[in-house]
Amino acid sequence: MIRFKRILVTIDGSTQSMKAADYAINIAQKYDSELIALHVLYSKTGFAFHSETATGLITPSSINELKEQAKEEAEKWFGEIIKKCADKNIQVKTEAIIAPISIVEAIISYSEKENVDLIVTGGRGRSAFKKLILGSSASGIVTYAHCPVMIVK
Amino acid sequence: MIRFKRILVTIDGSTQSMKAADYAINIAQKYDSELIALHVLYSKTGFAFHSETATGLITPSSINELKEQAKEEAEKWFGEIIKKCADKNIQVKTEAIIAPISIVEAIISYSEKENVDLIVTGGRGRSAFKKLILGSSASGIVTYAHCPVMIVK
Repeated sequence: MIRFKRILVTIDGSTQSMKAADYAINIAQKYDSELIALHVLYSKTGFAFHSETATGLITPSSINELKEQAKEEAEKWFGEIIKKCADKNIQVKTEAIIAPISIVEAIISYSEKENVDLIVTGGRGRSAFKKLILGSSASGIVTYAHCPVMIVK
Repeated sequence: MIRFKRILVTIDGSTQSMKAADYAINIAQKYDSELIALHVLYSKTGFAFHSETATGLITPSSINELKEQAKEEAEKWFGEIIKKCADKNIQVKTEAIIAPISIVEAIISYSEKENVDLIVTGGRGRSAFKKLILGSSASGIVTYAHCPVMIVK
């Protein structure tokens, strides 16, 4: 049986991602789903934590600093989403994480770990020529996700 | 306000496309939407109808023949979808069309003409290496659609 128990929406502050959040909230309300709003901060520096080959070994405290930075960046966006969810009585969790390898990899890993049933993400808009450059994140998410993906423009 | 008044699902007989239909039916029920199940038959021959440069000018009767062929091909798939929609009291329209240029172009044009609010389409599954080759149709639809697109795997 099809149920969207947990919906993940990726947030980067763009108009498209906030529109994606509106769709995710709407679907969460219809399906009585739990919503997770995820912001991913890409950090090359974070890579050192894994490889020790980059700019030096990262200490747990600097990882925490990066996480704080991601959280701070996302605070305003998360605030809007939390308010909308409260108005509609939707359970919501917000999370800011660091992507040491790639944003797509971080989103895919997170969505698998959290066992989400749907990922909602923003794509880029159309150009004047009615062509579109799909955000590389959106394209990667669609390619590697374990669950349905909704691209909102 | 977000509403899915008309949902388009693309059908090609693959397992993924029938799974996409199940998702589309589920969402249509939640949103009280009208569902359109679309099968597109790609026909190079049909191109002659537009360009007159290919294998000769196509007559209206041969276009009709092609359409009949597409309908016949889709009959079994459409039947299943119609039955499921009837059980759930969902209004459904089935359509088989010819793509003289490309399948993606035909789906995009159709979705604009019919003013759909959501396109649901199947993507290919994961390979043993957890990589995935997204169907080229799915990728094209995501790229050019005027509305949100849900990729079901």
